[in-house]
Amino acid sequence: MTRVAPETLARFATDILRAAGTTDGQAAACTRAMMHASLHGVDTHGIRLLAYYVECLAGGFVNRNPEVRIARPRRGAVLVDADCGLGHFPSYLAMEEACAIATDLGIGMAGVKNASHFGAAGAYAIKAAENGFIGFVACNSGALVALHGGTEPFHGTNPMSFAAPLRGRDSFLLDMATSSIPWNRLLLRQAEGRGLPAGVALDGEGNATGDPAVARTLLPLGGADFGYKGAGLAGVIEILSAVLLGMNLSVEEDGFGIQESRLGYFLMAIDPETFIGRDAFERRLSDYLDAVARQAAAGAPVRAAGDAEWAERDDRRANGIPLPEGLDVELAALGDRFGVRIGG
Amino acid sequence: MTRVAPETLARFATDILRAAGTTDGQAAACTRAMMHASLHGVDTHGIRLLAYYVECLAGGFVNRNPEVRIARPRRGAVLVDADCGLGHFPSYLAMEEACAIATDLGIGMAGVKNASHFGAAGAYAIKAAENGFIGFVACNSGALVALHGGTEPFHGTNPMSFAAPLRGRDSFLLDMATSSIPWNRLLLRQAEGRGLPAGVALDGEGNATGDPAVARTLLPLGGADFGYKGAGLAGVIEILSAVLLGMNLSVEEDGFGIQESRLGYFLMAIDPETFIGRDAFERRLSDYLDAVARQAAAGAPVRAAGDAEWAERDDRRANGIPLPEGLDVELAALGDRFGVRIGG
Repeated sequence: MTRVAPETLARFATDILRAAGTTDGQAAACTRAMMHASLHGVDTHGIRLLAYYVECLAGGFVNRNPEVRIARPRRGAVLVDADCGLGHFPSYLAMEEACAIATDLGIGMAGVKNASHFGAAGAYAIKAAENGFIGFVACNSGALVALHGGTEPFHGTNPMSFAAPLRGRDSFLLDMATSSIPWNRLLLRQAEGRGLPAGVALDGEGNATGDPAVARTLLPLGGADFGYKGAGLAGVIEILSAVLLGMNLSVEEDGFGIQESRLGYFLMAIDPETFIGRDAFERRLSDYLDAVARQAAAGAPVRAAGDAEWAERDDRRANGIPLPEGLDVELAALGDRFGVRIGG
Repeated sequence: MTRVAPETLARFATDILRAAGTTDGQAAACTRAMMHASLHGVDTHGIRLLAYYVECLAGGFVNRNPEVRIARPRRGAVLVDADCGLGHFPSYLAMEEACAIATDLGIGMAGVKNASHFGAAGAYAIKAAENGFIGFVACNSGALVALHGGTEPFHGTNPMSFAAPLRGRDSFLLDMATSSIPWNRLLLRQAEGRGLPAGVALDGEGNATGDPAVARTLLPLGGADFGYKGAGLAGVIEILSAVLLGMNLSVEEDGFGIQESRLGYFLMAIDPETFIGRDAFERRLSDYLDAVARQAAAGAPVRAAGDAEWAERDDRRANGIPLPEGLDVELAALGDRFGVRIGG
């Protein structure tokens, strides 16, 4: 297992994306989102995705030079047209705009249309928290997840992320797929030669399987008894992103392989100042995190949403980002293809 | 099993609540919310709760004659002070106000403070949909649910509800606890002499149990492998309601028995007109519901969130609301106490 300093890996990723033909702004935003994931231990959505984005750019599945446009259809809402480019730049932009509206009104929302894969939803929710706002992000994706009781892909893994800000202390950060596992984790398990937990996947015939190699459909969060909750949450994400923005339903996008996408994103920011003032809000949020920490200090293996990410970040800042065997080879091949060396 | 016409049951509930000392407006809103639940098959939060609300009123745990006040701290936000009365009236009011703001800005939020139990969250989300808006509702509640990996109550069952409107067709409606089951369903199972599914409850020593009689702590949605997602969602609800409104954390409220509460609610409305116009929004939402219906027509036991509720509503409108044995006796006793007869 190689470990690489975050800055070194970031420079490599940006150089590769530029060499693959996209703009400085697009490459910088894509790198930033991948590095958010790689730094915080969300390896499914980290530097692993560089090769995928390169294929999207090289194959013409995303627009290498998009003209990202902003409209303001209502005072509380911004609409960003991603123009079929990479999803990261318009997502950061949309969250900035939602925060600006929330500064004014207390709450603001942004929709992104004509969009493709944006990586980890948490990258944009934490952006809101860095700006001092509660952030919420939702996005549908190509069909991979069965309905509760179903056997074929219907919803995407339809992730959501929520972050709440604290000055001088790590935020609350939830970043989750509405399936039990995201497809990228299945691929990661397969690459690592590991099986799947029970109740997370079906094979091509609709039978339960623990083998990532034959899995064709994921199951919604909640398992055999309560999967209707995970499917319901996936439906909420679908409505906020695809339906509200007039984009493709997950079932209209193929969850496998690389293709042109017409996805929608929904982003929202809330000003913690609104109801009780920021200081009082932060005291209550600290009380919540302290209460979790007290259970942990008493010996329970519990943590608040985000705690795992902050621990990984501290470790990886100090020791570098781990590149598992296979990924290092893949990145080196990308470097050879575009004449770029890691740390070169 | 007795069945009673919805109007008859509603009149009885209102009469009882008036006799227990609250105002016409409070009694009407409480009845409306209970009847939403009873009509749509959410029996955990239906007329079953009448005796509980009567105890809250009779025991002075809620304010019988609250002065509900509205403030507008920001252009995008309304703050409703429930003045420690029943939670239903301020919730309907808050959602109306959120819809009014969304009419103007595209999105609007409302916080309710100094609040107690509001029944089924879905009652207020569906109110938004009836008004033509996407509705979202979240509320924390007394500690009953362990953290993932924990053994004692920390979060409430912290429900959320989301509804999306369609003219001339039943809406999408998700109304769920972030625990696998709500406490009221555990009580219902106990009353029916039924056990609990695996992985939903712990006894007083923190050991898994299927016996509702000894269960003391619920487990978060997601089970042994993915309970961190349910706990994370419960944390989101906690932040939107308790933290944002400066109210009690779930862990600061006893989940058992009747007491004075200081809960917060978060409600939000989004105008489907905002990004693509209402007609296009409704076409996409119909496409989504149609796609679910096609899988069901092909034989898969699947449905969209809300479908179960609409089926119950149709049945119960036609055949009356079922009162299981025990509940009919309890309601008759309430009637005797206040000199009110069902259908009298």
